[in-house]
Parts: sequence; C-alpha cells; structure tokens
Amino acid sequence: MKNYLKHNEWKIVEEGFHASNNMISESLYSLGNGRMGQRGNFEEKFTGKSLQGSYVAGVYYPDKTKVGWWKNGYPEYFAKVLNAANWIGIHIQADDIELDLATAKVKKFYRELNMKEGFLLREFDVILSNGIELNVVAKRFLSMNDPEVGAIRYKVKAVNKDCNLKVTCFIDADVINKDSNYDEKFWEEVRKEVRNGEGVVVASTKKTNFHVGTGMKFKTFLNDKELHNPIESSEREKYISNNFSQTLKKGDELTIEKYGAVVSSEYHPKKDILKKTFQALDRAAIKGFDQLLKEHITYWENKWETSDIIIEGDVAAQQGIRFNIFQLNQTYTGVDDRLNIGPKGFTGEKYGGSTYWDTEAYCLPFYLGTAEGPVAKNLLLYRHKQLQKAIENGEKLGFKNGAALYPMVTMNGEECHNEWEITFEEIHRNGAIAYGIFNYINYTGDKEYLAPYGFEVLLGISRFWSQRINFSEEKQQYVMLGVTGPNEYENNVNNNWHTSNMAVWTLTYTLEVIDYVRKEHPYLFKELVEKCKFHEVEETARWKDIIEKMYFPWDKKRKIFLQQDGFLDKELIPVDQLPASEKPINQKWSWDRILRSCYIKQADVLQSIFWFEENFSKEETKRHFDFYEPITVHESSLSPCVHAILAARIENYKKTYEFYLRTARLDLDDINNDTEDGCHITSMAGTWMAFVMGFGGMKVSKGTLSFHPIIPENWKSYSFKINFRKAHLEIVVNKENAEFMNHSTEKVHMEVFGKKYELFGNQKQIIPISKKETFSIN
Amino acid sequence: MKNYLKHNEWKIVEEGFHASNNMISESLYSLGNGRMGQRGNFEEKFTGKSLQGSYVAGVYYPDKTKVGWWKNGYPEYFAKVLNAANWIGIHIQADDIELDLATAKVKKFYRELNMKEGFLLREFDVILSNGIELNVVAKRFLSMNDPEVGAIRYKVKAVNKDCNLKVTCFIDADVINKDSNYDEKFWEEVRKEVRNGEGVVVASTKKTNFHVGTGMKFKTFLNDKELHNPIESSEREKYISNNFSQTLKKGDELTIEKYGAVVSSEYHPKKDILKKTFQALDRAAIKGFDQLLKEHITYWENKWETSDIIIEGDVAAQQGIRFNIFQLNQTYTGVDDRLNIGPKGFTGEKYGGSTYWDTEAYCLPFYLGTAEGPVAKNLLLYRHKQLQKAIENGEKLGFKNGAALYPMVTMNGEECHNEWEITFEEIHRNGAIAYGIFNYINYTGDKEYLAPYGFEVLLGISRFWSQRINFSEEKQQYVMLGVTGPNEYENNVNNNWHTSNMAVWTLTYTLEVIDYVRKEHPYLFKELVEKCKFHEVEETARWKDIIEKMYFPWDKKRKIFLQQDGFLDKELIPVDQLPASEKPINQKWSWDRILRSCYIKQADVLQSIFWFEENFSKEETKRHFDFYEPITVHESSLSPCVHAILAARIENYKKTYEFYLRTARLDLDDINNDTEDGCHITSMAGTWMAFVMGFGGMKVSKGTLSFHPIIPENWKSYSFKINFRKAHLEIVVNKENAEFMNHSTEKVHMEVFGKKYELFGNQKQIIPISKKETFSIN
Repeated sequence: MKNYLKHNEWKIVEEGFHASNNMISESLYSLGNGRMGQRGNFEEKFTGKSLQGSYVAGVYYPDKTKVGWWKNGYPEYFAKVLNAANWIGIHIQADDIELDLATAKVKKFYRELNMKEGFLLREFDVILSNGIELNVVAKRFLSMNDPEVGAIRYKVKAVNKDCNLKVTCFIDADVINKDSNYDEKFWEEVRKEVRNGEGVVVASTKKTNFHVGTGMKFKTFLNDKELHNPIESSEREKYISNNFSQTLKKGDELTIEKYGAVVSSEYHPKKDILKKTFQALDRAAIKGFDQLLKEHITYWENKWETSDIIIEGDVAAQQGIRFNIFQLNQTYTGVDDRLNIGPKGFTGEKYGGSTYWDTEAYCLPFYLGTAEGPVAKNLLLYRHKQLQKAIENGEKLGFKNGAALYPMVTMNGEECHNEWEITFEEIHRNGAIAYGIFNYINYTGDKEYLAPYGFEVLLGISRFWSQRINFSEEKQQYVMLGVTGPNEYENNVNNNWHTSNMAVWTLTYTLEVIDYVRKEHPYLFKELVEKCKFHEVEETARWKDIIEKMYFPWDKKRKIFLQQDGFLDKELIPVDQLPASEKPINQKWSWDRILRSCYIKQADVLQSIFWFEENFSKEETKRHFDFYEPITVHESSLSPCVHAILAARIENYKKTYEFYLRTARLDLDDINNDTEDGCHITSMAGTWMAFVMGFGGMKVSKGTLSFHPIIPENWKSYSFKINFRKAHLEIVVNKENAEFMNHSTEKVHMEVFGKKYELFGNQKQIIPISKKETFSIN
Repeated sequence: MKNYLKHNEWKIVEEGFHASNNMISESLYSLGNGRMGQRGNFEEKFTGKSLQGSYVAGVYYPDKTKVGWWKNGYPEYFAKVLNAANWIGIHIQADDIELDLATAKVKKFYRELNMKEGFLLREFDVILSNGIELNVVAKRFLSMNDPEVGAIRYKVKAVNKDCNLKVTCFIDADVINKDSNYDEKFWEEVRKEVRNGEGVVVASTKKTNFHVGTGMKFKTFLNDKELHNPIESSEREKYISNNFSQTLKKGDELTIEKYGAVVSSEYHPKKDILKKTFQALDRAAIKGFDQLLKEHITYWENKWETSDIIIEGDVAAQQGIRFNIFQLNQTYTGVDDRLNIGPKGFTGEKYGGSTYWDTEAYCLPFYLGTAEGPVAKNLLLYRHKQLQKAIENGEKLGFKNGAALYPMVTMNGEECHNEWEITFEEIHRNGAIAYGIFNYINYTGDKEYLAPYGFEVLLGISRFWSQRINFSEEKQQYVMLGVTGPNEYENNVNNNWHTSNMAVWTLTYTLEVIDYVRKEHPYLFKELVEKCKFHEVEETARWKDIIEKMYFPWDKKRKIFLQQDGFLDKELIPVDQLPASEKPINQKWSWDRILRSCYIKQADVLQSIFWFEENFSKEETKRHFDFYEPITVHESSLSPCVHAILAARIENYKKTYEFYLRTARLDLDDINNDTEDGCHITSMAGTWMAFVMGFGGMKVSKGTLSFHPIIPENWKSYSFKINFRKAHLEIVVNKENAEFMNHSTEKVHMEVFGKKYELFGNQKQIIPISKKETFSIN
C-alpha cells in the first residue's frame, strides 16, 4: 500500500520525486494507443530503478519453455511480450555532466498523467554535480488518431548560469526483456538509416520474424526560434543517434520536439517498413506537435463522452475509476480483431502480454457498455478467427472430431503456457468464451452474429465438453474429472461445480442456437453442418443425456453447491481468523498448504452464480455468498469485482463498497505491492463492472435492461453512461433520485427497482431513491 | 526392444560393431567402483553417436530451476550429476589418419563386459582411409580395491604395413553435460601439471566448489619392451596431454598402459588434491596393471561369493540377473554413509544422480540380503545424517516442531526437485524411509539401531504425518488431502490409501519404538526427549486419535481399498483393451488424459499390500491384485518387481515369471527404449527382490525367515545366497527339491512352505518341491 500520489479528479500527480517508487510510477504513467504502448520511462538518462518498456501490439517472442519433466501436450513455447525499441530517448549533458535524476540534486519535481487529454507531463528543476541548474518541462503522448505516431516536447532551461548543452536524440532497438532467460536478446537488426534530424531502425524478432520500424524526427528551438545546428550522426548495431551542441545563456530555453514512429509488419509489407516509418514521421512533423495533440485531445473528449463515470464528493474514488477507464481505453481500441487485451496491457512484461479468459469474463462488458458495437464484437471475432487453432489444441490433448479447447494463454491462437494444472485443466475458460457469445448477444441483441460466427465456436466448445465428461458407473451420472476452476488455489479436482455448470450451460445454449440457426438461416445451417461434419442426432443425443444426468456436488445440509468433490473435508476456518502475518497466503504459505486449505483465490462457485443470477433466488445467492466469501482471500485482482456485485444483489451494500474500493485504486495505491510490474489492466474492467453492476445495479436479463441504484452516504452523487443497443443512456444518482437520461432517439425498455419503464428518445426519467438504497460505509 | 547382444552367462558380448546402438552399449558397458564411474566410452577418438560420461560420487551441480510460475516452497536448484573429466583418452593417428570407429572400416569388433572379473574388453580390427589396418585390444577397469584408481591396457598392432603412430594421452576436464541449459559448463580449472608420462588437472565445480583432481600416468611398450620415446607435452584450459610418435613395422604391437586417478575433495583437503592425485597414480603404476587387476578380480570373487544368483537352463535369464547384481555392486559399495544410489548410478546423467525413495523401497533389501551389515546400515545412516535438513525442508513448507519431510530427490539432504505435485505431495516417501528402518531391524535384528538413530528419524516423520493429516468435520474422521501416491499418474488426490496407510503405520510403529527405547535405554530416552523437545503425552495422544479415526477409502461392493477418493468415477477399462498404438500412454497421451484415466504407473495400493502382506489374507491380496493389476501399465521400471512378488503370493506363478522377465533384461534388451540415457540401476534391485522373494518366496515376518520356492519348468535349477543375521545361506532349487545350506556356524530358524525348520551351522536341509510349485510358463 503506497500513498505518494495526489488525489485529483482528472490527473495522476506526483509532487517531489519518489525515486524508490519510480518503477511503480513508470507503470502508472504508462501511455498507450491500442497499437503501441510504453511505460512512463524518462527521455533523459536515468540510472535509478527502472523497468524500460516499449511494446508493440501483437509482436511477441516464443521463448523456450523446456524445463524439468516434460508433459505430453505442452506447447513448445511461452509467448513473451517483447520490450521493443525505445524512441523517446533524449540524453542531455550540461558542461559534460549528464542530466540524470538519480544523480542530480532534485529541487523540484512534478509529474502528471493527464487522463482527460491523454498526455504525460513532467516539470523538474535539478542541480547537476557541476552546479548547473536546469529546468525541464517534458510533455509526451501517443497519438490516438494516428496510432503509429507519438510526440515529445522537451524543454531545457539554463536557470542559474550559462552552459553548453550536448544533446543526443536516439533510437535504441538494442533492448532486452527483464524476464529473458540468460539475458538473451530477441531483436535483430534488419536495416537502419540516419540523417540530420531523423533516422529509423528496422529490427526483426527472432523466430517470429515480425519486422518493426522505429523512427525519430526532431526539430530544435532556442527560445522558440528554430535552430539549425550542425548535427553529428552516429550508429552502432540496432542503434542510431543524432548529436548536437547548443550554448545556453542563463535563462535561455532549448526546446526539442521529437516525433516518434512505430510501424510494424502486422500492418505493412516487410519490404516497405523503412519507407513507411519515414512516412509516419513526416506525417507527424508536418502536422506538428500542437496540431497532433489537439486531435488527440478531441479523441479523448469523445471517449470520455461515452465512457466517463463521475463521482461527486469523493476525489479518491473519482480518480480511481477514471484511471481504470483511461487505461482500458489506452489498451484496446477495438479496431483490429487480431488484437486483444493482455492482463498488463502495455504497462509491463508480466503475463506475456497474452490473452486470457479475462477478456470474456471481465473486459467484454466494459467495451459492450462504453464503446461502439464493433469494438466488443472484435473481441469475439478474435476467438472465431482462432477456432481452428483451438481445435488443433484439442487434438494435441487427444480430443477429436472438431472439439475446440481454447488456450489458457495465447498470442495467435496457440497455447503458450505450460503448467499442466492450468494449461490442461483450467478448461472453464472454454465456458467463458461460450458465455462471451451469449453475453454479447444478450446485450446487443445482435443474433445475426450466430450464423456466420458464434455457431461454429459454440459447436467446437460443446464437442469438447461432451468428450471431456465421462460417465461414472459408480454414480450413474456424468462427471468431470481432473479440472482446475477459476480458484487456482485448487488443482486437479473432480467435479468443480463452476466448470461442470459452464459445460452443461454451453450444451444447453448450443442446442438453442442450433434451433435458431436452423430456423432462421436454413441454407447457412446446412452449409455449417457440412463444413463442421456435424452429426446432429448422435452428437446432440449425448449432449442431452449429459444435461439430464450431470452430477453436481451438493451439500444437502447447507443447501449449497460445493466447489468440488470433497470440499467439506477441509478445515473451514474463515479468512478473518488467519493471523495477519500469514497473509497473503500466496506469499506466506507453501503451495501444498494452499492447495489443502479451503481458501479461495477468486470467485469460483460465485462466478457462476454471478453469471446466471436469474437462476438463483436472493436466498440461494446469499447462502452461497455467506459460505464462500468468508473463505475467499481475493488474491487475484479479478476477485473483488464479482463479490462487489453479488454483495449488492443480496443487499450487503457495505461489502459492495468495500470490494469496490479494493479494486478501484488497486494500482494507484499499489495495494498488492506489485504495480511496479505493470498495471492490472483486465481487472480494471472488473472495476467498471463493480461500479455499474454493483452501485448501478445494472443487468440485462433476456434482453431487458434493469437497474437497482444504490449510493453510499459519503458520496454526493455519481453518474455513468452506457450504450445499450441503439440508445445512449446517462444515469445520475444522488441520495434522493436516480435520473435516467436517454441521449438518443431510440426508445428503451427498462426496469428500475423491479418496476418497468419506457424511456423514450431524449427523455429523462426521475425515480426516487429510498433510504434503503442509501447506505453508510461505517 | 533390441537384441544385438550375445547371451552368455558371465559376459555381455557384442560381436560386430553396432554403431547405431552405441549409446545403448555405452550405458550397458559402464564401469563403476562406488566412488566413480564411467560410461563405456572409447579411449580413441569417436565421432559417432556417443554420450560422454564420467561421474564422481557425491559431486553435483545445483542448476537453475526458475521457470514459469514460482511456487512457494520450491527449492532454489535442481541437482545435476556432473559429467567430470575424462581420463581414458588415448588418441591414435596412423600416418596422420585418426583412428575413429565412426570413419574407419571395421573388419572385426568384439566388446565384452566381464562381470565375473569386472573389466571391459574390446578387440577390433579396422582399416583406416589410408589403407593401414590396425588391430586393437583394450582392457579397462576401475579398481574396487583402490577406488581412486583405474587402468587401461591399450594395444595397437600394425597388421598390414609399416606405419608411424602418433599417440596422444590426455586428461580433458573441459567437458559439458548433455542436459545443461544453454550449453553452460560447470567446471573451472584450479591448477594443472603435466610432465613426461604423467599429468594432473584439478578442476572445481561452479557454485558447489567441489575440487576434483584427475590424473594420468602411462608407460609404453613395443612388442613388450618398454619405450622411452621423446614426449611432447601440451596444455590448454582444463586440458593436458602427452604426445609421442612410434614407427611400427608390420606386425609390431605398441602397448600403452595408462593409469587414471580421480581424487576428490570429499576425501582430501582441497590444498592436497594435486599431490594426492599424483600419489594415487604412483600407487597404481608401482603395483602395475596385472597386480591391480588381480586384486580387483579377487574383490569380485568375494562379491559374487555372497551375491551370485545361478540359473541353470536359461542363459538369457542367467545373464540378466547377473548384469543386475553386477551393476548394483558397481554403484554402491556401502563404505561411505554420505553416498547413496541414483536411479541411473554412474551410467548416465538422467535423474540427476540423486537419491530417491527407490533406496528404501527397492535397494535396501538387496544390500541387506547380499552384503555385510554396515553396507545396508549406511543407507539408513545417510538419512539419519540428513534429518536436520528434512526438518528444515518441513519448515519451508510450513510444518513445525521438528516435523521432518525427507526430500523427494536429494544430493545432500536438501530438496532439489521442483514440481509441486511431486516435491510437495509425493510424501509417501517419508513412509518409505520409516519403513526402511523397520525393514532393516526386522531383517537384521539390530534393534540397537533405534536408540541412537532410528528413534529420531521416526519421531520427525511421525510429527510430519500428525501435522499433515487433518480432521474432517464432515466425515468425523481424519483425512489426508492433496497427495500424490507412488502412482504418479494421479496428482493432488485426497486420501491416497497407500500414503494414509504408511502414515498410520509410521505412527503405530513409532509408538512401539518409543516404548522400546524408554524401557531398554531409559537414560538415552530422557536425553532424546529433551533434545527433540518431545511432548510425549500431547503428541502421542493425537497420534493415537489419528490411528483410531483415520479414514481409508473403501469399496464396500468389491471389498477393496480404493487408491484414492473418487477412484470409481473413472472409466475402468483394462490395459489389454487399449489399442497397442496408444501405449505407452506416457508417450501417446496428453498428461491430463493420463490423470483422468484409471491407469496406474506402478504399484500403489499394491505397494502397501506387498509391504504389509501379513496383514492381508491371500484372498484379500488376490482381490486387490485382480482389481489393480489389469489397470496397471507398468510404465515405471519399478513396477513389475512388486507385481512379480505379489503374483507369487497368490500363486499366479506365470505372472511372476512374466513380470520377472520384464525387469531382468530391461536394459540388456532396451525394453523401454531408453537405455541409451543410462541403466535403470535402482530397478535392478527390484529384479533381485522379484527373484528372491518371488521365485524363492523369501520373506521375513516378525524376525522369522521363510521361503516358498517355485520354479518354472523351463529352468533346470536356480540358486541364490543370502546373509541372514550372522548366517550365510545358500538356497538351491530344482524341480524335485529345495536345498538349504547354512555356510555359517550360526543356527537359523526358518519356515519353508509354512513348516518350521532349524538349520544348524554348516547343515543342509533338503525339502521336496511339489508339482504345484513347478509351473509352465506357457
């Protein structure tokens, strides 16, 4: 838990340089534009604690995974998001002393992430070891409008005396990954060109052979007058630079406007990369810093228009939710269905930058609710495109006949994680991917998605479940052996209820979808049956038998579904009875002790109850919540959000608030002590869910939107916006009323507090909030 | 399955060079003397397929283990047995063409491992590319009497013309491990000295800093007349050599007698290693090749005198069992209680050369039965010495108060394997170590072992079980969650019967031992109680409660103990119904499929039934055997032996024979297609058990020795010898009689076919064999 940043509604502000927290700051001050991203590293040299990180969407390296005892079915590689070329570098020497915040005396330091306008700003005053005082103002952004482009305006002023500045502007593609084994490097130079004021390095990744051009172009000004100093170019492997000198009189200010371009072979033919990089640089330079920034700010204005959440009366909460929304929108813009959302986005190396089930379970609702249609749909198309690989993945594990097992972790559809208990067993992910399709259609009403795309994916997944389940002669029921649920603190258990529930649900939903497609798209259906070699009668007969005879672990006494077989053999001691010194258990306990314990990492039984809440009465939900929540340690950042929402459903509003806080400022306050590795991007979408579904009480059941707003007493009001089908709604809640505004012309049917309303286009509906929905947090 | 070696009673013979099987031959032709060992590599250069391997007992390297997701409690390293300096090298050039069996034309090739006399012999005739024909006779052994010393007599004859030989005798410590990551090297040079006719390289291991001196000293003879040719020395890092030339007339024979010495800091101060290595070389050279070999042969005569098994009428079976006994005696001589038996002995790198539970479960009975007292006892002392490390290992996993968890894999008492399902969960090993103590005392009657040694180990292990077991409120019984049994095709199961049974047995036995030590050694007992902070009343109260209320999974219908909870939910399809194309499943199936299946890798429930057979009636044993054996795939080399013995107990003699064959010639016939990695040393001890306990029907129950000999019809007779307490017995079985000879002066009580006998010193007892005990193998 850290508390060194200022609370501010729109900005993340650091005053005074907190060198020991610098890696945390680098994560928090990350910039991204969906196509590339970078940690908040400094332009000038910095010899203090730092994790250098620049990332290019979709560019990865297949690292070796072989170690210990190989298990059949393991993938050959573990995908790594690659630290890519650094284009921001501007090194400064004043009278031969390097400007370096780790060695200079820092008189003043201000750093701001401006979330409203999407830029990073630093202002600082330092005294170098030779007594020269410099004032620096640096502003940087990655253009949302031209995602191959970024820009920096870097101003250096001689404060106390004349001095000679030596400036080096460079591109350095000779970078490493912190997590590389044996310091292996992953980039090889393809070509480079450097001239006065500009240069490009094209490098390719080993094995995967992605080509990426990284370029710079810059102008310099002395007190706003453009300079044309003699420039010396230099180069070495994977590196180019421009060096020049400028004498500053006391009070003079040197400005460097540096444009960066990152151009990858994911978007251009390899042979054109060099040219395209120079073209991108030219585009940026011609427009100029101010115009680029202006367009960028306009983009962000529009983004906030549809996705902002406003909290009045609680600056910390306000800052927290905006930071989450800001990072989500920086990470994924939804314009490319080959891209997805890594757990750390563009903010660090961890989790390999790959796609997890986080996407369907946590991220999809955010993009459904706040972005235009294609954005969320592209997340689904991503999986549809990878169906063949999922079928191959299933085949590697011995499944047949088009059974699809989507990978646990992937870059391109192939599995790239190799712990058997996760890779082979955490198969509930397959259910999440099926649920994503259902959720998308339920929310958008876009049933047309099914015939060309959804059907095939659902069929593949249903075929997997059908083969993965076996009949127990002993029980005379179907069972699912050897799985790991969302609660990864259990491995290789039998009959994890959530997984079995997802399986039976998928089979049931797929049967519905089959009926729908056959009826509505008979010709397409015939084609699909042939393409997929679908033997409907035989295959669905087994599905129906499974649906009818599936075994679910159930405790008669408590009337709850059990997380898995044998769960009640554990010692059931609530988390709050564990000594603080033993928490978090994933740091304090050995793995076997965790496995034997009853403690739950993140929602497991409750994940299903959240997803299928309409199948459970409030009493049933409460029984499950009251049994499982007290033994849940929430050691996954994805855990609190589901609990926040369920707590709201059972009117335990204080818990909703408590869980919401735990997720909303997770990174800003470094609650899990790991923000230095990067921000928890996918759990940020969970924060949004916790807000909108928890406080707003929003849900969509059988296509009908409903709300049940609640408000903590310490807030004055809050508001959020959602897209729902063709409508744009704004919901403002204070302690007296909830206002529903329809900013579109589309009529919306909705329920609030269980009562039906018709909200016409551009109409406002004011509904009183009762005392019951206003709650004290103490 | 290979079949390129000749069947011979005392020799392993290869006629004609089988280059493609050379790595298999290198494993089979390995030499060892308990202190060092080496694969059957060639002295001359060989550019064909080869795994170079020289190993020094106790010398290992802690390799990195970090990969993927770290689990708390993992060890920091994975111990690797190190490929050490090669001292055998003698490179030969004839008229500048290198003698290399991979490139020369091989006219004749004969290779012999002489198991009776413990040497390796090669005779071959080759024509080099320049037409020169050479005849080579090479004889090599590692002295059993002076285990720092080895010797080679290498003769080269010019067969068809005069030629000039260039000879290089060298020591090469610049070696690598095949299994090293990124080709890392593990040795660093400390110093070296080379003179005419001798030289030493001292190298140290990285991290562990073992120092090993490897030296050579040689003499040369032309047609038996000693030569004193000018010698040129050369050296480079970690390498020294002597080079000389000799012109051979057609028919001339050059003989090189090369002595090797391997001297390690496990036995001498580091500063003396160089000197001690030269001293060892001098010892060898002064004695000379013939005298050294003579003493070596005498050692083997004595070894065979106590450990030989003779089979008349089946040369393949005879060769098989002798090969097993020979390798076991080469690997462990029992003179150093810091050493133990790695699964591959000195024959390969695999399994890191470390100690597994194989020692107690499989190897101990062999050394108890065939070697003098201290040999087997040293295997127990090895664990006693490592008790503190086992307690620390327990602490790392969260156990307290002196609870000892012995490592799954170890070199020095520390755990050095890191797969959670094995390292943390395969805890039945702790029971095997306790059982080893019981077994030793049961066999030897040496109860005196308990007070100074056994008690503490048993207490530590019992404390572990007591903490590892928890009370299930649901069952109102004690349970053991999250374990992996000997059947590693199941992971993280609940209530593995074998493990729970070992736990309850350990607690029961420890209670007995406590009573014994208190009564017989009251003063020592008081000291031990204090030293171990043993709170007898409280601690044993819980043990007794566990003994009384332990839960064991039981199938009422079949009246068998179940391998674990939920076992009957699996599809129980016998192995013989699996298509051949799907076997072995560990190569054909994905890991998750193996885990979900019913298939058993090696005896699990049956391991306990074997160890505690007196607790089970023949019918009970048969019920368990008939249920489990058909679903056992025997994909561990340790599996068939236990099944061979149990099959004998239930009079399924054909199965005994079948399983015996599967283990006896496992390496000679390369049955598992992996002999090239090294021989299965620990399973060789299982072969001995299968023979003596299976065919001989030997067991020791409550200190009483008994036999139930059976004989396959295709054998004429067989005999084996055992030490039992102070007696030396020889048992000869043919189809009419079993003869029991007592070669000592000590009276022995024994039972044969359930009838009691007193066998006086130097007496012979002849007992008829009934038709029932003679069986057809068809």
